[in-house]
Amino acid sequence: MKSRKLGRGVAVVGAGMSKFGCFPGFTSRDIFVDAYKDLLNTIDKEFDPKDIEAFYLGNYSSDLFEGQAHLAPIIANWIGLSPIPSTRLEGACASSSIAFREGLIAIASGLYDMVLVGGIEKMTDLPISAVTDTLATAADIPYEVSAGFTFPGFYASMATAYMQAYGATPETFMKVTLKNHENGSLNPKAQFGQKIADIMEIKKASAIKKGKPAPQWRNEMEFLSDDRANPMIAWPMRLYDCSPVSDGGAALLLVSEEMAYQFTDHPIFVIGTGAASDGPLHGRPSLTSIPSAKLASNNAYKMAGVSPSDIKLAEVHDCFTIAEIIASEDLGFFEEGKGGKAAEEGQTARTGLKPINTSGGLKSKGHPVGASGAGQIVEIWKQLRGEAGERQLAGNPDLGLTHNVGGTGQTCVVNIFERR
Amino acid sequence: MKSRKLGRGVAVVGAGMSKFGCFPGFTSRDIFVDAYKDLLNTIDKEFDPKDIEAFYLGNYSSDLFEGQAHLAPIIANWIGLSPIPSTRLEGACASSSIAFREGLIAIASGLYDMVLVGGIEKMTDLPISAVTDTLATAADIPYEVSAGFTFPGFYASMATAYMQAYGATPETFMKVTLKNHENGSLNPKAQFGQKIADIMEIKKASAIKKGKPAPQWRNEMEFLSDDRANPMIAWPMRLYDCSPVSDGGAALLLVSEEMAYQFTDHPIFVIGTGAASDGPLHGRPSLTSIPSAKLASNNAYKMAGVSPSDIKLAEVHDCFTIAEIIASEDLGFFEEGKGGKAAEEGQTARTGLKPINTSGGLKSKGHPVGASGAGQIVEIWKQLRGEAGERQLAGNPDLGLTHNVGGTGQTCVVNIFERR
Repeated sequence: MKSRKLGRGVAVVGAGMSKFGCFPGFTSRDIFVDAYKDLLNTIDKEFDPKDIEAFYLGNYSSDLFEGQAHLAPIIANWIGLSPIPSTRLEGACASSSIAFREGLIAIASGLYDMVLVGGIEKMTDLPISAVTDTLATAADIPYEVSAGFTFPGFYASMATAYMQAYGATPETFMKVTLKNHENGSLNPKAQFGQKIADIMEIKKASAIKKGKPAPQWRNEMEFLSDDRANPMIAWPMRLYDCSPVSDGGAALLLVSEEMAYQFTDHPIFVIGTGAASDGPLHGRPSLTSIPSAKLASNNAYKMAGVSPSDIKLAEVHDCFTIAEIIASEDLGFFEEGKGGKAAEEGQTARTGLKPINTSGGLKSKGHPVGASGAGQIVEIWKQLRGEAGERQLAGNPDLGLTHNVGGTGQTCVVNIFERR
Repeated sequence: MKSRKLGRGVAVVGAGMSKFGCFPGFTSRDIFVDAYKDLLNTIDKEFDPKDIEAFYLGNYSSDLFEGQAHLAPIIANWIGLSPIPSTRLEGACASSSIAFREGLIAIASGLYDMVLVGGIEKMTDLPISAVTDTLATAADIPYEVSAGFTFPGFYASMATAYMQAYGATPETFMKVTLKNHENGSLNPKAQFGQKIADIMEIKKASAIKKGKPAPQWRNEMEFLSDDRANPMIAWPMRLYDCSPVSDGGAALLLVSEEMAYQFTDHPIFVIGTGAASDGPLHGRPSLTSIPSAKLASNNAYKMAGVSPSDIKLAEVHDCFTIAEIIASEDLGFFEEGKGGKAAEEGQTARTGLKPINTSGGLKSKGHPVGASGAGQIVEIWKQLRGEAGERQLAGNPDLGLTHNVGGTGQTCVVNIFERR
């Protein structure tokens, strides 16, 4: 594949999200309103929503989650944007990164100057087994799911392959859990905004309140290794290795580079984008990396003219803890097989050399699948503008990256953002 | 909304489709192979599929129809195109026109020179009541479907409003049926490739074979008015006013204008595109036109620099016969309220002044919803190249239009094509 430049530059001038969580009684259109309002509050200068020329919405499967398809024009109408062209994109858990990419391309084409990109998913109306089945439709139904695989199984197989190849242990993965909950505890939008230590205290207090003996975990690792506190889902992935089932929305306002400073003195520019596809997991030669992520990031780096070492922070697709470690290698941050060690050493913590998932990641912030990619961009946008609150990175980071995977890597989209 | 030009021109250099019909035992990926192979056979000069840089797939709801989401990378892999970026777009029955539009925009942006656009739907695995329910998810579930509406009801309400406003009768709609079956009888890819007169003969022969008296319809209108031969679905829409439930796929190869003649001496250029969205039907001031169709076509005409009278033929979204009549007015071919009369007078026949749905339309060719828009483009492409076989229009038409509606008009996409 050739690497190319877009026809013209694009900047993100507004970025918002709803709280991620479990919101019974609210539909996806209601939740998107929260994301859109949050976005409106982030636009620094004057702005008229009537100037938005098109709407690109990422959504995985409101069809199966809510029994409602054709969601883009419905949501556009709900937030007052009819009759602009309104397009839904689906690429499993990468749906809103794909929507973002199409918004970017549309501005680059000259057709529009201003585009709203959204992501939305309302997952919690279904019983959990139906959620698992719905998520499984992102894999290959006749060839994989019929054989008994669902997503915890796919990523567990990657985790065991990684352990076997590189000597990682279940404790390696737990370090990712600890870090992402630590980061998420500083994110008011996170679904599970508690450190693991806080969760331990909550559980102890709850036991005492019920008149039971308080569990005696000596530290967080002991808690995470306790089969009752952290049950096995698919060995070696335990409950706290898995991202949750979530409701949530996120929204981004994209404008052409020339217009960016009309809306803010601090636009964030999109300098690279890459996307790739792949066949299902069962046909791949290796389980310890995701080829589409390597290809997508290489293309994004080429377009941006930067290398992995230039990236100051990244939001990566940690649907399971193993996925974050593999991502940190696929993106070129660490050599193959070294991502686990890097996580253990704290290199990916907020204070490390390569902070990953400062938002808390999908693990702690939540994973409303169609909104997750746009939510990643919200975090990078805030960090690059110095507006990430208590979790703000030191050192004025100027280059950030998002990495969003669909399925087991049948889809991957990588974007690179710059503060100038 | 501003009207703009795309950053650079785009041509269609290949166009294929599967037969539309009912194909038990085949999945959407199998059916798409037929469309893709058919496309490959239409490329006149040398071509290497490895040069395809991206894949845009329109699909309405394989989620609900087949229990399989994330279809774009699966199909890309099935036809040997991994690892190119593969994106699924959904806009109800306009899904593949939306995919086409994004393919167009992507080439215009400079990111790609060659893009494959597809459309696919596999509808016939579900029982008919489940198909109706699945299609209904393209409407507004809480506000319309909960009130009892499904699509035959929506279009029946438009038909009664049209009759009341303009004096049309059920016979007006039957003229559309007659024409589209006449056209479809000349299309080997059509699901129902029989004239109504032929269907009458088949029914008579079948009765005689069963030892029953042969029905004595004196002409086609008597057949179409017979409650047993043509049962009422939602007054005044009878069975033969409704497009069928179909399986099918279609595929288009798009390249940048500069490259077009490398692939064929007869490229078809895309000179205009327009898209618009709208809220659900229940909130609209009038039922006798579709505002998004007016807006989308106005934008397409402006971009192309042509007017409705310049268009030599059109494929329009005749999901129901009333929809074709309303489309012929929304597109500016006839004044409001005059489309019914024009259909009665044969103005939209192949021999008329403004031929509509020479392919047989959704009515006779079939309506695999996610493939219908791409299928419309296949027909225009063939007609403009003089390759439409027995149904080829006389007079070397040079300008054709496609009009594809999602739902009741929450989405509409219009494209204009030129032979130079």
